[in-house]
Amino acid sequence: MNAPLPMDSVGIVTPQKARFAEPLALKGGATLPGFELAYETYGTLNAARSNAVLVCHALNAAHHVAGVYADEPENVGWWDNMVGPGKPLDTNRFFVVGVNNLGGCHGSTGPMSANPATGKQWGGDFPVVTVEDWVQAQARLADHLGIETFAAVMGGSLGAMQAMQWTLSFPDRIRHSLVIASTPKLSAQNIAFNEVARQAITTDPDFHGGHYYGHGVVPRTGLRLARMLGHITYLSDDAMMEKFGRTLRSGTLGFNFDIDFEIESYLRYQGDKFSTYFDANTYLRITKALDYFDPAAAFDGNLSKAMARAKAAFLVISFSSDWRFAPARSREIVRALLDNRRVVSYLEIDAPHGHDAFLMDDARYMNAVRAYFGNIDL
Amino acid sequence: MNAPLPMDSVGIVTPQKARFAEPLALKGGATLPGFELAYETYGTLNAARSNAVLVCHALNAAHHVAGVYADEPENVGWWDNMVGPGKPLDTNRFFVVGVNNLGGCHGSTGPMSANPATGKQWGGDFPVVTVEDWVQAQARLADHLGIETFAAVMGGSLGAMQAMQWTLSFPDRIRHSLVIASTPKLSAQNIAFNEVARQAITTDPDFHGGHYYGHGVVPRTGLRLARMLGHITYLSDDAMMEKFGRTLRSGTLGFNFDIDFEIESYLRYQGDKFSTYFDANTYLRITKALDYFDPAAAFDGNLSKAMARAKAAFLVISFSSDWRFAPARSREIVRALLDNRRVVSYLEIDAPHGHDAFLMDDARYMNAVRAYFGNIDL
Repeated sequence: MNAPLPMDSVGIVTPQKARFAEPLALKGGATLPGFELAYETYGTLNAARSNAVLVCHALNAAHHVAGVYADEPENVGWWDNMVGPGKPLDTNRFFVVGVNNLGGCHGSTGPMSANPATGKQWGGDFPVVTVEDWVQAQARLADHLGIETFAAVMGGSLGAMQAMQWTLSFPDRIRHSLVIASTPKLSAQNIAFNEVARQAITTDPDFHGGHYYGHGVVPRTGLRLARMLGHITYLSDDAMMEKFGRTLRSGTLGFNFDIDFEIESYLRYQGDKFSTYFDANTYLRITKALDYFDPAAAFDGNLSKAMARAKAAFLVISFSSDWRFAPARSREIVRALLDNRRVVSYLEIDAPHGHDAFLMDDARYMNAVRAYFGNIDL
Repeated sequence: MNAPLPMDSVGIVTPQKARFAEPLALKGGATLPGFELAYETYGTLNAARSNAVLVCHALNAAHHVAGVYADEPENVGWWDNMVGPGKPLDTNRFFVVGVNNLGGCHGSTGPMSANPATGKQWGGDFPVVTVEDWVQAQARLADHLGIETFAAVMGGSLGAMQAMQWTLSFPDRIRHSLVIASTPKLSAQNIAFNEVARQAITTDPDFHGGHYYGHGVVPRTGLRLARMLGHITYLSDDAMMEKFGRTLRSGTLGFNFDIDFEIESYLRYQGDKFSTYFDANTYLRITKALDYFDPAAAFDGNLSKAMARAKAAFLVISFSSDWRFAPARSREIVRALLDNRRVVSYLEIDAPHGHDAFLMDDARYMNAVRAYFGNIDL
C-alpha cells in the first residue's frame, strides 16, 4: 500500500493529448499544420461550464501543474502549492487546465516533433511562436474541452503574459485574468539576458543550426550556460547572499578554476540538470516569445489603448525584490487598466526571493489568490 | 603636419617595461619567477618624489591610461578624460603611473608569456593572481621608479580594490586612496555572473584547459559570451532602455534567430570586438581576483577590523544606478573607515549610467576628483 497523498493534493494525475487537425496561422507568417497539445486537468467541469481556469506556464514548466504521476511519485506539479483541493486555486470548486505550449518539449508539438512535410524532426525549422500563437492554440484546447469561457486564466512571468493576452485575443472568453510577476513588455536589459542565452546555444558547436537531433548530439554546453544565467535573474541579490553568501565549498580558496564558492556549485548543478531534460530549440523559442510580447506595440507604444479591448477583471501581483520584472512593470499594467476603468486589484508583496517569489509560499500572496478565487462567481 | 592634440591631452605616450628578477611569492602559494610589468607615466616626478599617483585598471583596461600612441593616434587611454594637463588628475602637478597587472594580456607577464621552466607559454599553468599580488608587484614598480610613497592610488571597480588594498598592504606608502564604484567584496550574485563567464570560456571546445595557444585556436566563442554578459552588468536597466529601448534593427520582427533588437546587435558587436583582442586566460584570472578580494575575510568578516591597518585618507565615490557595485557597498567601506576614525570623504552621484558611470564625464564627479587632488599637499 502506498503512503497516503497529502489531503490537499490533486493526487495522481494523467497527462492527456489533444490533436487539432486544422492548420494554425502563426503571427510570424508561417502556418503550422495540425498540431498536438499535451495537457492535464484537475477538478470537475461543472454543468454550467463556468468554473474552468487555465494555468499558463513560464519558461521552465509545462502542463504538469499539480499532483503526481502514478509511475513518478516524486514528479510533483510545478504549482502544486497553488492548485489543489482547499488550495488557493481550489480544485474542489474549479476545473483547472494545464497545457504545454506550442513549441514546447514536454509533449506538445514542437521542434522535436516530426515535420509532416519531411517526416523528420522539425529542429531548427520549427517556426518562432509567440504569446499570441499560444493563446490561439489554447483556445482550440478550450473548444475541445467544451469551455466557451474561462472563469480565469492565470500565470506567473511569461505565464502571466498569456493571461494578459487572453483578455486581448478573446475578451469574451475570459472573466478574470491573474497576472503575477510580469511585465507588459521586456526591457532592453531583459532582452539582453535572453540574447546572451540564445547566443550561448546557437554558438555551441553541437547546435548545427537547430538540427542537432540528426547529428546525435545536443548543444548541452550552451543550454547549460543559458540556464545558469537565467537562474541568476530569477533570484534577488539579497536572496542569493542570504542563501549562499560567500560560503566556500571546501572551506578554503582553491586558487584554480574548480568550484570555490557554494553559489558556483549551485549554478553548475542547476545548469547541468536543466541541460539533460530541456530542449535547446524550445528554449530559444520561449525566449523569443518573451522578447516579442508587447501588446502596446500595435498602438504606438500606448498600453492604455492596447488594453482597451480587455473586458476581464484583473488581479495583478508583483514582488518587491523581483528585479527581472520589477513592481514598476506591473504598475504599468495596472495604470493602463485603470485608464480604461477596468476592474483591477493590485498587490505588491514585500518578498525577498526575487522573481521566483511567484512560485513560493508567501502567506500574504497565497491568501490573496485564495480570496480572489473565492470571490469569483460560478 | 598632424592635427594638434587637444590642449589637455598628455599627448603622445610611450609604454615602457620594467623587469623584476626576484621571484614573487603569490597569495595562492605559487612563486612567480622574475616578471615584467608594462607601464606608462605622465607628468614629472618632483624632486621630493611626493607627487606620484598610481592609477589601477579594472577588467578591460591596462597601463594605457591617457594620451595616444604615435603609431596609433586613435588608441586613446582608457581614462583620458580623467588624467591630463588641467584634468581632474592634473599631470601638470602629478606624476601619474599606469600599469598592466600581472596575469594581464597587454605586455605584463601573464598566461601568454613564456614559462621559464618550460620555455613554452604558460597558458593554463599561469597561477591565479590576486589583488594582493598585484599590489605587491606594483610596489616593486614603485621601487623601480624611485617612489617611496604614492601621493595617491586611484581606481574604479576592480581598480578601486587595488587602491583599497594598497592602504592595507603598504599603509606607509600611500597617502590617499580613491575608491570609485567599488565594493569591499563581491556578493553571491557578483560571483555568479563571473562564474557563468568563466564556464562559457572553460567549456568552449577551443579552451583546451587553457593551453589553446599551442593548438592554434582561442576560445573566442566563450570569451565573446563572457563579454556580452559582463557588458549587461556594466549598464543600468534605465540606461539600456534609454539608449536602446526596444528599437528594432530593421524596423520589423524577423521571426527567426537573427538580430531583432538594437540591443542584440550592440551586445554581439561588443562581444565580437572584445574576443579579438583580449586573452581568455587573463579574463579567467581577473574574474577570480575579483571573487577572491575580501579584506575582511581574515577578520571574521569584520571590515572595520580589516581596515584598522589603513592610514591613508580616502575618497569613496559611488553611483546611484550602479547595480553591480551599488552605493550600499561603498557605504560599507565608509562605515569601516569611520569606525577607525579615518579621514574619508564620500560622494554618491545620482547618475543614470550604471557601473560604467565611473568612466564617464559627469561634471559633479569630475569636479569632486579635481577638488580632492587639488587639496593634496605635495
